[in-house]
Amino acid sequence: MILQRSFPALHSLSSKYNLNRVRYLGSSITKLSSPETKACVSKPRRIFSGIQPTGMIHLGNYLGAIVQWKKLQDDNEDVILELADLHSITLPQDPKTLSKNILEMTATLLACGINPDKVLLFQQSMVSTHSEISWLLGCICTMARLNHLPTFKEKSASLKDIPLGLYIYPVLQAADILAYKATHVPVGEDQFQHIQLTQDLAKMFNNRYGYCFPIPHAIVTDNDTSRLKSLRQPLKKMSKSDPDPKSRICLLDKPEDIAMKLKKAVTDFISEVTYDPENRPGVSNLLSIHSFLSNKTIDEICRESQGLNTGQYKTSVADAIIAHIQPIQKEYYSLLSDEKYLFQVLRNGAETAYEISHATLKEMKQKLGLEVLLELSKVKAAMQ
Amino acid sequence: MILQRSFPALHSLSSKYNLNRVRYLGSSITKLSSPETKACVSKPRRIFSGIQPTGMIHLGNYLGAIVQWKKLQDDNEDVILELADLHSITLPQDPKTLSKNILEMTATLLACGINPDKVLLFQQSMVSTHSEISWLLGCICTMARLNHLPTFKEKSASLKDIPLGLYIYPVLQAADILAYKATHVPVGEDQFQHIQLTQDLAKMFNNRYGYCFPIPHAIVTDNDTSRLKSLRQPLKKMSKSDPDPKSRICLLDKPEDIAMKLKKAVTDFISEVTYDPENRPGVSNLLSIHSFLSNKTIDEICRESQGLNTGQYKTSVADAIIAHIQPIQKEYYSLLSDEKYLFQVLRNGAETAYEISHATLKEMKQKLGLEVLLELSKVKAAMQ
Repeated sequence: MILQRSFPALHSLSSKYNLNRVRYLGSSITKLSSPETKACVSKPRRIFSGIQPTGMIHLGNYLGAIVQWKKLQDDNEDVILELADLHSITLPQDPKTLSKNILEMTATLLACGINPDKVLLFQQSMVSTHSEISWLLGCICTMARLNHLPTFKEKSASLKDIPLGLYIYPVLQAADILAYKATHVPVGEDQFQHIQLTQDLAKMFNNRYGYCFPIPHAIVTDNDTSRLKSLRQPLKKMSKSDPDPKSRICLLDKPEDIAMKLKKAVTDFISEVTYDPENRPGVSNLLSIHSFLSNKTIDEICRESQGLNTGQYKTSVADAIIAHIQPIQKEYYSLLSDEKYLFQVLRNGAETAYEISHATLKEMKQKLGLEVLLELSKVKAAMQ
Repeated sequence: MILQRSFPALHSLSSKYNLNRVRYLGSSITKLSSPETKACVSKPRRIFSGIQPTGMIHLGNYLGAIVQWKKLQDDNEDVILELADLHSITLPQDPKTLSKNILEMTATLLACGINPDKVLLFQQSMVSTHSEISWLLGCICTMARLNHLPTFKEKSASLKDIPLGLYIYPVLQAADILAYKATHVPVGEDQFQHIQLTQDLAKMFNNRYGYCFPIPHAIVTDNDTSRLKSLRQPLKKMSKSDPDPKSRICLLDKPEDIAMKLKKAVTDFISEVTYDPENRPGVSNLLSIHSFLSNKTIDEICRESQGLNTGQYKTSVADAIIAHIQPIQKEYYSLLSDEKYLFQVLRNGAETAYEISHATLKEMKQKLGLEVLLELSKVKAAMQ
């Protein structure tokens, strides 16, 4: 599940960073707007979320996660968004595909309206502090605590040799969140226990070594949008792991494929277009998708679709999807043709992310006794 | 056991680094000699070792580890020596004590003759790459592999809640070694299986992602020096964990304490001074210590001690220990009064360590697909 390890935050940038960034941007990279436009005021909530750089984004992911992040961004929330590539490698990856997916996921998010001047978007493995904080937290986390997490049992059940990464990734997830002192983390229900682990580790650290972390709250996001159903089996969730590609609409599907998938979407033998999720899950799922993408209510759509049979209605849904997706696709391919810009976005994001998370790491290390007692500033002064 | 997680490497410094270092040193920090004196030629062996920054160094540690490192240094070997503080925190530590111990261990090593211009000496937690590489290796290491390590079973047997760090530290150890592409690692017998894990992880990475690591060899150092016996129970090893402080001589013991500990050393009812480890372990242990510290053979000492009873001989041993230890103690307290210098040694070491290990990390990330395909140099060029 691409977004299963989803979790989120907002950043207040130091004036020092802004200066660096201006310097950094004062060149041929012109697509980024000035960092001065970024909200620099400390905000009450910092929302952290992550997404793995996997290949395929379908409508379920788009509506359940990306659209939600964009809403938070447009509400001027302090949002931190991580491309969680260190989580991706807890299961085997083809290196070339992974590398390609990182740039493609960046392009996808930007094409969907994520604005790197408003959201702190960065690639996890570019920021060393995540692994470092994960080690520190791993020394206060007990094995018993990890053994009880149901996700580990599920994920490892089918594997002969369980990679260590699959066991310890919830600790890295806690490090991701705590590195930015995030206060809120949108997660699916299946990730709720990971946030509880993060809360426990934050409390344990605070209790043992002195206050360092606010306790992050989970925002459970299992709303209607994240529960889009399969087009082929409308009682199941739309999922990237479904072997039948006709079960889902992907953000990069061509118009003719979207039309074909809609045509083959399973409905029922009633011709009329009505919303009744219990008895008519297929048509109701199409109405949900249609409503989300067109910003019309389901009632409006039903009214507009009076006189259409479900076959004809499917064409309307396909048209609505295509109308919504095409501008995103256009922007996506335009962005992807400018890899230098995408790389620059990731690099700028990593610099800010490092600056924020390194301050947290330093604080943790001081409290743990890993920093020698001398103040670096004094040493520097002595050296001049 | 302070040195149980002992492991080692030699570094060839880039000319770039040397320039940095000259700049760095061109100031009031004058105790460091010029880095030009450092061997910059690539050597066939790189030896990596580590020591935890715990408080008390006794003669067993001194002779079994520090003296051996100094020999390698004086033989112009490429030696990397890590203050393994990230390993220390796998069990609870008092932060103030840990912080103090880091500086004190640095002073101890330098006082014993470790030359930071010849050996790359650094504090592990100052170098981010160790945690980062540990995460990457943790994703190819299986849980079954770790479950089989006997050290884990031993260390965790007495604990109610097993910290995760205690389970995964052999992976961090592998990262420590592989980060520097070390070829040789001196270890105690009990650590041999950890080197096998390191070898396996290196081979697995090379096989899956392309050649990256030389396979490091263990140098098992369970020689006579590391088997100094307890002064109170001469059939047991001299150990820092022995509850009776009279069982060991510490490097910082005062002369009167050394004399007292020798006086109370368990020998037997035979008055003569003879070497017979099997039947006379107590006196034989004193002869071993005496021989190691005075650079005389046991035969020579026995000849010189003819006519002395064991009581009188103990005074000779105490004198030999004090004569050897006092200059080290003097240098230790002198170094400790210049914390800025010690900090500067650690900082310089961390810079070199980072430079070397970051090149390895970058190579690993490229092979794993974590680096986007663009070359940073191209981006930089485009920005100018």
